[in-house]
Amino acid sequence: MKIAAYEADGRTSFGAVKEDGIVDLAGRIEGVRELDDLFEPERRAEAEEIAAGSSARHALDDVTLLIPVAPAARILCVGINYRDRNEEYKDNSDPSTYPGLFFRTHDSFVGHGAPLVRPLESDKLDYEGEIAIILGEGGRRIPRENALAHIGALTCLNEGTVRDWTRHAKFNVTQGKNFDRSGAIGPWMVTADEFDGYDDLHLQTRVNGEVRQEDTTARLIFDFSYLISYVSTFMTLQRGDVISTGTPTGAGVRFDPPRWLVPGDRIEVEASGIGVLGNNVIDEAA
Amino acid sequence: MKIAAYEADGRTSFGAVKEDGIVDLAGRIEGVRELDDLFEPERRAEAEEIAAGSSARHALDDVTLLIPVAPAARILCVGINYRDRNEEYKDNSDPSTYPGLFFRTHDSFVGHGAPLVRPLESDKLDYEGEIAIILGEGGRRIPRENALAHIGALTCLNEGTVRDWTRHAKFNVTQGKNFDRSGAIGPWMVTADEFDGYDDLHLQTRVNGEVRQEDTTARLIFDFSYLISYVSTFMTLQRGDVISTGTPTGAGVRFDPPRWLVPGDRIEVEASGIGVLGNNVIDEAA
Repeated sequence: MKIAAYEADGRTSFGAVKEDGIVDLAGRIEGVRELDDLFEPERRAEAEEIAAGSSARHALDDVTLLIPVAPAARILCVGINYRDRNEEYKDNSDPSTYPGLFFRTHDSFVGHGAPLVRPLESDKLDYEGEIAIILGEGGRRIPRENALAHIGALTCLNEGTVRDWTRHAKFNVTQGKNFDRSGAIGPWMVTADEFDGYDDLHLQTRVNGEVRQEDTTARLIFDFSYLISYVSTFMTLQRGDVISTGTPTGAGVRFDPPRWLVPGDRIEVEASGIGVLGNNVIDEAA
Repeated sequence: MKIAAYEADGRTSFGAVKEDGIVDLAGRIEGVRELDDLFEPERRAEAEEIAAGSSARHALDDVTLLIPVAPAARILCVGINYRDRNEEYKDNSDPSTYPGLFFRTHDSFVGHGAPLVRPLESDKLDYEGEIAIILGEGGRRIPRENALAHIGALTCLNEGTVRDWTRHAKFNVTQGKNFDRSGAIGPWMVTADEFDGYDDLHLQTRVNGEVRQEDTTARLIFDFSYLISYVSTFMTLQRGDVISTGTPTGAGVRFDPPRWLVPGDRIEVEASGIGVLGNNVIDEAA
């Protein structure tokens, strides 16, 4: 099932995405107050039944899609994870034994269709197309062999980056990764039952239609099961938490000269079985 | 005013700390649902009036103090910030032009008196005593000259670190800084009106009574006004958000050989005008 968070007629809600639009699910299933609650199998079954038996309340064009992530969720992003990415750094260092990780705020993302904001402070806004895992079931020290069962849904994520601000300090990319509205998540989440495994999901990022990043999860250094297991070693994961699984080669910074995003650019992140996350860049009003 | 978050008789609440204990404030002031709401000057005045006219409901020993930070708050920690700390790294690199920053989860902290957990995965648990700012008023691109007015309160923070896990990856210390219950915040927050400036606050960290870290905010590389202004450049700060301002020299890792924390150790972080945050280390149950 595709589940979208959205705003329509001045009200925020969530619902099932069908071919003809969105079936509103808010308030229709006992115990389901926000979209994460739909990861519980019985509730999801009930949602599917409602969605199958109802016509869409809203056309997709009539709603504003919001990021399909609860405000309380922690959003953890993985650094270098597709093969050949480490070479892009050209620092002759060995690839890491463990994944690099950093948090992003909820506010650093917008939903599908909302403008991505190039901030006043930099002209080095960049894209990073990714596939993000939304946890359906949390846990601590989740064994790798059981980790995939903890996936609730997948979504597309543009890990938009203000590149010069990632190197303000010796360690930690925090500031370049957390500019307000610099990234995007969406267009919706697709529940785990719709995927026939996660070992060969195709991921593509386009800028104004031109393919810039293209790869498959078959080439991940740290696969989904490893990431869930590893992260849960140090922190107790909660339902709704997000692990974004890293970006392929080909971000704008890797071109010579770099190809930064400019106002008017359209970035599309497309992944197998999920859909297309699309956003246009605007300049922040001074 | 000292404001504590606490649990007593199976119920979580918050209240004013007086000499004889805690005056419960939950539900007694209109518009105040959680402790951050007390930053609003009129509400704080009302709280002070209630506290002055009431006897304590609980003795401090009868409550469990919780971290005085709302679950929705973002907790941002500053890396190297006291002078001489950069030299401790012995990597001959220049100090950064900007502060290093990383997020920690709410769950990585416990309140005053609760055990700090040395995890199964490492024997390299370390302390870092800090003073943390709790934002009273948020904002974006807060000018430095006005930044101190955005401080709602200060508290002590032990930025407990699983040292070997901070270097799992090339960049980003996330995993070593986010083990569940590895750090502490408290014992309470002290509202900004109780401080006569922030330029010379004394900070001391003791392990089993032995002074390990001692410094003053007079020697900060990036002072409180700079930090608030800088962070708000990339993200809109919200009331309740936390900026922990960095630790002095003398963490356990800097000794030769390093002096890691072991079960039974007591760590105390004391800061001018705030009080003493004290926690004992335990080993995690296997």
